[in-house]
Amino acid sequence: RYGEAEAEDMVGCVTGLAWTEVGGEILTIESVIVPGKGKVQTTGKLGDVMQESVSAALSYVRSRSITFGIKPTLFEKRDIHVHVPEGATPKDGPSAGIAMATSIVSILTGIPVRKDVAMTGEITLRGRVLPIGGLKEKLLAALRAGVTTVFIPKENEKDLAEIPENVKKGLIIKPVSHVDEVIAEALVRRPEPITWEEPPEAPAVAATPAAVLPSLPH
Amino acid sequence: RYGEAEAEDMVGCVTGLAWTEVGGEILTIESVIVPGKGKVQTTGKLGDVMQESVSAALSYVRSRSITFGIKPTLFEKRDIHVHVPEGATPKDGPSAGIAMATSIVSILTGIPVRKDVAMTGEITLRGRVLPIGGLKEKLLAALRAGVTTVFIPKENEKDLAEIPENVKKGLIIKPVSHVDEVIAEALVRRPEPITWEEPPEAPAVAATPAAVLPSLPH
Amino acid sequence: RYGEAEAEDMVGCVTGLAWTEVGGEILTIESVIVPGKGKVQTTGKLGDVMQESVSAALSYVRSRSITFGIKPTLFEKRDIHVHVPEGATPKDGPSAGIAMATSIVSILTGIPVRKDVAMTGEITLRGRVLPIGGLKEKLLAALRAGVTTVFIPKENEKDLAEIPENVKKGLIIKPVSHVDEVIAEALVRRPEPITWEEPPEAPAVAATPAAVLPSLPH
Amino acid sequence: RYGEAEAEDMVGCVTGLAWTEVGGEILTIESVIVPGKGKVQTTGKLGDVMQESVSAALSYVRSRSITFGIKPTLFEKRDIHVHVPEGATPKDGPSAGIAMATSIVSILTGIPVRKDVAMTGEITLRGRVLPIGGLKEKLLAALRAGVTTVFIPKENEKDLAEIPENVKKGLIIKPVSHVDEVIAEALVRRPEPITWEEPPEAPAVAATPAAVLPSLPH
Amino acid sequence: RYGEAEAEDMVGCVTGLAWTEVGGEILTIESVIVPGKGKVQTTGKLGDVMQESVSAALSYVRSRSITFGIKPTLFEKRDIHVHVPEGATPKDGPSAGIAMATSIVSILTGIPVRKDVAMTGEITLRGRVLPIGGLKEKLLAALRAGVTTVFIPKENEKDLAEIPENVKKGLIIKPVSHVDEVIAEALVRRPEPITWEEPPEAPAVAATPAAVLPSLPH
Amino acid sequence: RYGEAEAEDMVGCVTGLAWTEVGGEILTIESVIVPGKGKVQTTGKLGDVMQESVSAALSYVRSRSITFGIKPTLFEKRDIHVHVPEGATPKDGPSAGIAMATSIVSILTGIPVRKDVAMTGEITLRGRVLPIGGLKEKLLAALRAGVTTVFIPKENEKDLAEIPENVKKGLIIKPVSHVDEVIAEALVRRPEPITWEEPPEAPAVAATPAAVLPSLPH
Ligand SMILES: [Ca+2]
Ligand SMILES: [Ca+2]
Ligand SMILES: [Ca+2]
Ligand SMILES: [Ca+2]
Ligand SMILES: [Ca+2]
Ligand SMILES: [Ca+2]
Ligand SMILES: [Ca+2]
Ligand SMILES: [Ca+2]
Ligand SMILES: [Ca+2]
Ligand SMILES: [Ca+2]
Ligand SMILES: [Ca+2]
Ligand SMILES: [Ca+2]
Repeated sequence: RYGEAEAEDMVGCVTGLAWTEVGGEILTIESVIVPGKGKVQTTGKLGDVMQESVSAALSYVRSRSITFGIKPTLFEKRDIHVHVPEGATPKDGPSAGIAMATSIVSILTGIPVRKDVAMTGEITLRGRVLPIGGLKEKLLAALRAGVTTVFIPKENEKDLAEIPENVKKGLIIKPVSHVDEVIAEALVRRPEPITWEEPPEAPAVAATPAAVLPSLPH
Repeated sequence: RYGEAEAEDMVGCVTGLAWTEVGGEILTIESVIVPGKGKVQTTGKLGDVMQESVSAALSYVRSRSITFGIKPTLFEKRDIHVHVPEGATPKDGPSAGIAMATSIVSILTGIPVRKDVAMTGEITLRGRVLPIGGLKEKLLAALRAGVTTVFIPKENEKDLAEIPENVKKGLIIKPVSHVDEVIAEALVRRPEPITWEEPPEAPAVAATPAAVLPSLPH
Repeated sequence: RYGEAEAEDMVGCVTGLAWTEVGGEILTIESVIVPGKGKVQTTGKLGDVMQESVSAALSYVRSRSITFGIKPTLFEKRDIHVHVPEGATPKDGPSAGIAMATSIVSILTGIPVRKDVAMTGEITLRGRVLPIGGLKEKLLAALRAGVTTVFIPKENEKDLAEIPENVKKGLIIKPVSHVDEVIAEALVRRPEPITWEEPPEAPAVAATPAAVLPSLPH
Repeated sequence: RYGEAEAEDMVGCVTGLAWTEVGGEILTIESVIVPGKGKVQTTGKLGDVMQESVSAALSYVRSRSITFGIKPTLFEKRDIHVHVPEGATPKDGPSAGIAMATSIVSILTGIPVRKDVAMTGEITLRGRVLPIGGLKEKLLAALRAGVTTVFIPKENEKDLAEIPENVKKGLIIKPVSHVDEVIAEALVRRPEPITWEEPPEAPAVAATPAAVLPSLPH
Repeated sequence: RYGEAEAEDMVGCVTGLAWTEVGGEILTIESVIVPGKGKVQTTGKLGDVMQESVSAALSYVRSRSITFGIKPTLFEKRDIHVHVPEGATPKDGPSAGIAMATSIVSILTGIPVRKDVAMTGEITLRGRVLPIGGLKEKLLAALRAGVTTVFIPKENEKDLAEIPENVKKGLIIKPVSHVDEVIAEALVRRPEPITWEEPPEAPAVAATPAAVLPSLPH
Repeated sequence: RYGEAEAEDMVGCVTGLAWTEVGGEILTIESVIVPGKGKVQTTGKLGDVMQESVSAALSYVRSRSITFGIKPTLFEKRDIHVHVPEGATPKDGPSAGIAMATSIVSILTGIPVRKDVAMTGEITLRGRVLPIGGLKEKLLAALRAGVTTVFIPKENEKDLAEIPENVKKGLIIKPVSHVDEVIAEALVRRPEPITWEEPPEAPAVAATPAAVLPSLPH
């Protein structure tokens, strides 16, 4: 039934959390890839900010693709379509960023997303996770939908004080500061980095401190 | 006569159901393919949401094309045009999604659509069928138009309680939760999957549980 | 003189019928082809609906081109320009659809259009002719302009009851339900189908019942 | 001095006539070609209708290019820029159509335009000249600017009755019904047709009755 | 300091003159070229008219490139970026046209612009210089900024009567009717024409009377 | 924590300074490069002026790339994405120009940006640094965020008189007139020029006086 957690682990399907005027709600992010030339299509009545967060998520994944085991050349041969049902409901905001990135890594690696996981957090181009609004309503929605684990931004940890005890008991809440922590745990298995030799004239892509997927306790 | 069920099984023509201020109405979806480069054109004064539902339907069909017996390379050599007469009447909403998908599979496989069938339901990128509004008005329009079988979203099954008995007796109503159930039955014959070998560098496309067309009782 | 029927049979020039606030009027549709890559250009201050009807007419002609003796590869080597003078007068509506299709077939086959013929009717992607409004005003305009034969949608046949007798006597009115009936008669000679062998990987294009040009009594 | 007839015969420069709220005015149309791929650029704060009339003029010239001695392949190797000074003054309307066509033929053949000639008239895709408004004001402006010959639409001949005698005496007024009559006279020498052999798969382009340049008395 | 004449002769930098509500002002036009495919980019919050004047200036330079010693093929291998600081201030109007042309010739030839020169004048596609408004305010601004020589349109010569004597004494004012007169003097050295052989199928580009750079007294 | 200076020197990340209605604020500029064809993408709800300043910064870096040790051919093989979190906050203005340029040089050379540095200043196409507004609020924000060094436009030096003493003591304030002074100091090491041989038909790119990176005291 739509509005509940998924019944199975699926490739490309991630459960996001939205904050609406009438409370929190489950937001499913779906991605598919088809043969193409690197174009991205977004549907589901997404506002400008949410569309930009798809772009940021994709650029992050592209710039770090070998860390996720994705050959850089794959992007030139595939188009990616990201859709957020329900199609008639307008959606906006940056807080689905980490869900977008997780969905894109899942569809490009073929590794399913854990069906009992939800997440909320803005993503930056380096993969940092920025704080979001409406944490309480989002966690309530996650609980209602049957989710067991929720990733939230580290900077929202301070807001947990005002969350009812039964919500905090019913959910495993994981504060994260980098999207790699999410990807390492939300997929049914951790993506394996590959080695890739670039043509000599290109400068090495940014080797930021977060380049190695962290080992988080499960 | 326009506004009635088709007189013959035709390739690419699907009967959708619309919900307008003055009641339900038949909506014909027509598709043609022409030699091209994978572009999609939509006409018939379609609103943004309906145009996005064409995109979602097409991406679903593309991402699962071998299941429907469509060679993935075909999409690079054809343009698809989806039209919804009457051209001066504005149309919108996501509820024609499964009709769009059925029309696209029909035109790409060359298998005609059963002329006595109508359908309503939003489609997601994985082929899930989401609930729609105006079920009662739509079923009345289907009955008036001479349709015998109507596919509706499984999640709208609960709304059948308020449908008049004569409507329910005059129509075979088939609740579905996945568009593959529709495609398996609404075409005059079921599409046969093909095998297809992809170049080794591409990851396998999503192998979701619904990858095999279900055997539904006729 | 502009506003009258043409003085000669000409390639690409078709007389349509418009319905304005001040009565019916002659509408000339002109097309030319130039070397190109399959693009379509429309000018003459056409509204969105009329532009979409050019697209629908073209896609119909493309999808059935061999029936009209047009090699499918021609479309990749030509651009089509459709213009409706007078350039400062806004025009809209779908009722010029069959005139657009006739003009496009004429310019692509090089067969002139009969100068004493006018036509009105919406076209669908399968070539069906849908009803239009303002029949009476349009027929009066045709008579005034010196036209002898007018094609109208079959579904408008019922409206002939309210047409003055002198109009019905002055014009040969031909109700049609498919645009192929128009093309077979409005051109100075009937287009001859060609045979065409497609590459084996492409599925056959829709072979609808109307695929053979009908033999209408002249 | 701007606002007067040109001091010399120049390639691509044509004197049009505009009708503004404060009377008639000279309108210079300038064209240049540069190496390119068949694109057209228009500048000079042109409204939609005037831009469409550039398109119509260009398509007419392209579809009849061999009649004007222009190799059809030239269009694929050149871009055309049409500019109407003064750049800050908005301009619109279809009445510069024949001036646009004359300018384009001049720049593509390299034949200069006669400096003492002005013109006004809408052009259709077949080269027909349609009537315009403001004839009186336009002729006065032509006289003031030192022009000797003015081409006007044949259908505006009836309006000459209300033109003051001194204007009619000061100008040679030439009513025309087809743009080829203008091109034959407004350039300093008449363009010579060329023969051109098209690849066999393309149908012959429209051979309308006006295909031969008429011999007008000078 | 911004708002004053440049401290050095620089490639691509030209001092224009703007007329604002609070008086005249210096306007710096900057251009750079980068490897590319003939695209033009404009930045600096330029209005439509000023953007069109960049296009007109560029087309003039392109159509006459060999006169300025620029190989026609260079345009296919370079993109041009024209910027007018300060980026937050909206700018519009055609009067920077000759400054745009001068900047483009400078950047394409590599010849620096004289640092003590300013200019104002609309440009047409043939290089004619059209009159501008606000001459007095612009000359005052030039004087304030330390400029020594100002090019103005010949047709503005009549406005010099109302310019204060001290301004006319402090500046060398050069009225010009064609942009080639500006280019010949405003660059630190005069561009040398080159000879260029075009492929035989292309007609010769316009050989207007101004094709030879005039010899002006210094 | 977002809103503070970075914890590490990172490639492509630059701290800008914004001036909002509620005071000054830290603005992080992030860039990544991915394989591509020279396109630039900007996200983060940037207004037109800020987007244009990204373009100006990029064109400056491209036109001077060998000075920064970047092979000119690299731009044809990479796309650049510039993002400014937080994604839901609208941002505009030209004052982030030098930060954009620094970020682009950093990502293209792979040299990290010093984490304790912030900067504000409009950039021109030649790399000049133009004055900005809100200096006081920006410096206060820099101090609050833990930055040690701030680059400001030379032309804003006069505004330092009104800055509180404790701010001036807490920060090393470096007035600059050219962006090369910033790039030479804000990266953890100075980019090394390379030599590059261009094909003979291209004119040399502008050799402005600032072509050599200045030796500033540290
Ligand atoms: Ca809902
Ligand atoms: Ca959100
Ligand atoms: Ca209806
Ligand atoms: Ca609907
Ligand atoms: Ca009329
Ligand atoms: Ca109509
Ligand atoms: Ca004027
Ligand atoms: Ca006009
Ligand atoms: Ca200023
Ligand atoms: Ca100006
Ligand atoms: Ca903030
Ligand atoms: Ca700013």
